Amino acid sequence: MKIALAQQNYHIGNFDLNTKKIISAVESAREAGADLVVFSELCVCGYPPRDFLEFKDFINKCYESIDKIKLHADGIGVIVGAPARNIIPEGKDLFNAAWLLYDKEVKGKAYKTLLPTYDVFDEYRYFEPAYDWHVLEFKGQRIALTICEDLWNLGDNPLYRICPMDQLMQQQPDIMINISASPFDYDHDEDRKEILKANVLKYKLPLFYCNTIGSQTEIVFDGGSLVYAANGKLLEEMKYFEEDFRLFDLEQIQSQSLEPELHETRLKKFDHEMRVSKIKDPEKVIEYLTEENNIRQIHDALVLGIRDYFQKMSFSKAILGSSGGIDSAVTLTLACEALGPANVRSVLMPSEFSSSYSITDAEQLSKNLGNHYDIIPITNIYDSFLFALKPSFMELPFGPAEENIQSRTRGTLLMAIANKFGYILLNTSNKSELATGYGTLYGDMAGGLSVLGDVYKMQVYALARFLNGENEIIPQNILKKEPSAELRPNQKDTDSLPEYAILDKILYQYIERRQGPKSIIDMGIDAALVSRVLKLVNTNEYKRNQFCPIIRVSSKAFGIGRRVPIVGKYLS
Amino acid sequence: MKIALAQQNYHIGNFDLNTKKIISAVESAREAGADLVVFSELCVCGYPPRDFLEFKDFINKCYESIDKIKLHADGIGVIVGAPARNIIPEGKDLFNAAWLLYDKEVKGKAYKTLLPTYDVFDEYRYFEPAYDWHVLEFKGQRIALTICEDLWNLGDNPLYRICPMDQLMQQQPDIMINISASPFDYDHDEDRKEILKANVLKYKLPLFYCNTIGSQTEIVFDGGSLVYAANGKLLEEMKYFEEDFRLFDLEQIQSQSLEPELHETRLKKFDHEMRVSKIKDPEKVIEYLTEENNIRQIHDALVLGIRDYFQKMSFSKAILGSSGGIDSAVTLTLACEALGPANVRSVLMPSEFSSSYSITDAEQLSKNLGNHYDIIPITNIYDSFLFALKPSFMELPFGPAEENIQSRTRGTLLMAIANKFGYILLNTSNKSELATGYGTLYGDMAGGLSVLGDVYKMQVYALARFLNGENEIIPQNILKKEPSAELRPNQKDTDSLPEYAILDKILYQYIERRQGPKSIIDMGIDAALVSRVLKLVNTNEYKRNQFCPIIRVSSKAFGIGRRVPIVGKYLS
Repeated sequence: MKIALAQQNYHIGNFDLNTKKIISAVESAREAGADLVVFSELCVCGYPPRDFLEFKDFINKCYESIDKIKLHADGIGVIVGAPARNIIPEGKDLFNAAWLLYDKEVKGKAYKTLLPTYDVFDEYRYFEPAYDWHVLEFKGQRIALTICEDLWNLGDNPLYRICPMDQLMQQQPDIMINISASPFDYDHDEDRKEILKANVLKYKLPLFYCNTIGSQTEIVFDGGSLVYAANGKLLEEMKYFEEDFRLFDLEQIQSQSLEPELHETRLKKFDHEMRVSKIKDPEKVIEYLTEENNIRQIHDALVLGIRDYFQKMSFSKAILGSSGGIDSAVTLTLACEALGPANVRSVLMPSEFSSSYSITDAEQLSKNLGNHYDIIPITNIYDSFLFALKPSFMELPFGPAEENIQSRTRGTLLMAIANKFGYILLNTSNKSELATGYGTLYGDMAGGLSVLGDVYKMQVYALARFLNGENEIIPQNILKKEPSAELRPNQKDTDSLPEYAILDKILYQYIERRQGPKSIIDMGIDAALVSRVLKLVNTNEYKRNQFCPIIRVSSKAFGIGRRVPIVGKYLS
Repeated sequence: MKIALAQQNYHIGNFDLNTKKIISAVESAREAGADLVVFSELCVCGYPPRDFLEFKDFINKCYESIDKIKLHADGIGVIVGAPARNIIPEGKDLFNAAWLLYDKEVKGKAYKTLLPTYDVFDEYRYFEPAYDWHVLEFKGQRIALTICEDLWNLGDNPLYRICPMDQLMQQQPDIMINISASPFDYDHDEDRKEILKANVLKYKLPLFYCNTIGSQTEIVFDGGSLVYAANGKLLEEMKYFEEDFRLFDLEQIQSQSLEPELHETRLKKFDHEMRVSKIKDPEKVIEYLTEENNIRQIHDALVLGIRDYFQKMSFSKAILGSSGGIDSAVTLTLACEALGPANVRSVLMPSEFSSSYSITDAEQLSKNLGNHYDIIPITNIYDSFLFALKPSFMELPFGPAEENIQSRTRGTLLMAIANKFGYILLNTSNKSELATGYGTLYGDMAGGLSVLGDVYKMQVYALARFLNGENEIIPQNILKKEPSAELRPNQKDTDSLPEYAILDKILYQYIERRQGPKSIIDMGIDAALVSRVLKLVNTNEYKRNQFCPIIRVSSKAFGIGRRVPIVGKYLS
């Protein structure tokens, strides 16, 4: 039997597009001689469909798509992911299902048992978990068909009290097939291979694992579908951040030795925190965060994240403010890579507080990239605001209100050009700023998509070096200058914040690793500083709550995956 | 035995405050002769604590509070809600627990079984559901102690496959106690009494139901704690939107007739959609939405929502833009009621497109209310933007870009004064505008808290009439004028949108009732109009995603309770 894996990029709710893509791959698979072609979790509607699932009309459309696809399951088996109605009254109305189509009919369904409901995942909001389990027979093979999280329950601290593969093993399956929508993060990529191999070694069955790729608003799916022989040998690792299609000969895989691979004789202790634990040592955090392997993957995820956001929103052109600082430089460079420099416009908006270097550096960057740029000084607009506010402000000294006016003037100018010509404004804030609230709502916090909002400042520097490589696309001056918002004379970020190398270390422990103040202080970091930083994070929740979607690259990004009460009084 | 119910307002994560409040009520209850005092769900940390629960440090603080409270459980039993650690490795790390404290010790715990994970609720994100059940003995009474949702599983379409009260009944309890954090919405208030009475009639036991009150960012808890005799008779309905404390004599309640009350002989068929079903008839929707009983409750919820937001954020003063339109008039009136007119500042910001009435009406309103107002014309600032943008805009005709500049200029002015003097900007957008994207990001969509974002335009009018009562606080002219954003000459809302009476009808079916286009068209509404409106709703998700928290008064508010993919292509 020949099994094909189709790793594709879907668009949530775009049934026409998704159905066409799936049918096209079914046809290719048939032509290539496949007996069975496997797609990813909820491919029919795109993942995650979120509250669209609450519309009966949306579910009907899923069923209509299944009806279209099954007509092509003619001489070839097709496994697709789509919601299935729960026909008994008790429990939620839907299952998250894998559908086996063959002979133009639905031959069987498998329901997901373990419903991830943490971080960006909300599956128990919509789905009833499976409570009985059946191996599916196809062409003489007994398939243990599971969905994503169903294989993630091995190890020391399982999130669930049940293990669906243990249940399926009672029916003597021959192979495991898992359909997934497993997102990327740089803390996580090795975990996936570890946990899947642990399943293979535990159950001694070959595994076909099909993941999706593509970015859906903030969540980036990285593909990397996998095939393992029963002895734990990794036979195939499909492309990352790209669509891919491969065909496998099951008999050949099954004829392989069952002797475990060297070093694979015992089941590796699996721990969700395993990889992260390597860097519990705070001295090594920055080194870990800026590792070239992590930075390369972050780069790939951000480029895909930008490209897919624009394509799925039916936009092609981006605009952004270019300040001469590192964040806008990296954002601009990534945007040019994702959309092409002809589709990217940068705007330089100097004020009386801008250094002369800010303009020359930003100009040089755009010359290097070849993107169009405008220069629009903001001084007159700023003055007209101050004049209008004079009766209200009276003679009070210059302060944050005046700084924010400058930032919001820039936001308004960028949005004006975006509105006039049909650009999406890319936001340039980094994760360290967002964490500490070092930004102006409706000013530099404006934008439709945040490129660097999940990238700490120290990682932004590493990304800049990675983007430059041997060349100097981003001028060295931008890499070297001291960070400044340039909203008052001689302002420096360090007037308000600790050095980023220390700040990022604290933030990573608090945000990604959910360590409380005591644990962080116990790592040897100054208690007053820890308390000050955590207070900044928690009292600025109201700002992040109004921020645009952030392309997620870490295990804990701000946004839908991190839900903190705004009126909360914890550590604040 | 005497049982007290303490209906209190907590602050999420403010352990000092919550613990003090609880201990103070324990002391009052003891003095009043109570044997047992009952508090609400997760009262120790405040509900909903959301991702704070992922911090071990936060859980430790909950345990420390329990340790403090239990020292006061001296001669009196205390039932409080707090997370409890799951000591076995399998399953999530926490339970949502009710703790029975007595003799300065923890005498028992009951875990929540049914974890609401829909709308604003995310409990399965944090908690393991209970899987065994024990009646707790206290002073000779066998208590079936449950938590909120545990009593919400009767009827035709239960969300869950288990019923914790059925389990507890096997141990012959004498009374039911339920601790809750059950939020208000005007679609829901009658449901609560129906479902609780259905439990009483099914199990033939008296019920003590203690709810919390207070607003937590967007979610308003309305109190209204209830006591039922075993025959289904409602003995007490505690205050709504206020703290309250009452003492009950259990023996007296138990000595009442077990004969069911008249008309209570059969268990009422319960349906989550029951109340809503009354208004499936689209002709009656607007009538229902503007019913005086609903409007009065919405009023109470909004006043509490504003007051609590400011208090819990440690702010006292509000600012808002006053345009002379109905939305800002109602918001201003509510703000003055919640915070006092001395704490509310309104700003009138006329442009060349403002009618003269806009200013005089807005001035008259502030004179009626007695709040401070400024007049800051925006024409010069607007002109300075246009001048700066001239090279970029070239000679292109006036359009939405220019309209948005005016709106963002106003947003910037309001934020400037807010930043300078420590106000929170109240947003004045209504639900109909937010639904259709009829607003400017960073302009009239700016603000820290949305007062009317869950109130349809037709309801805003009804609220205005309710606020006026016999007087004319809001000038009649504001009530009568045709709605306009006044961003270009002779602009009217109806240039872009259908009449609000029709629009709101469609929106309610789509948003609150999750009806698809076919069902709405089948109600007799024009197909092209339905399709246009649903498309507006879905393509403007990106704007709402950056909007501030909205005080929730309906069964489906925009915000955390409605999660729709931004790049989604459904109905768009």
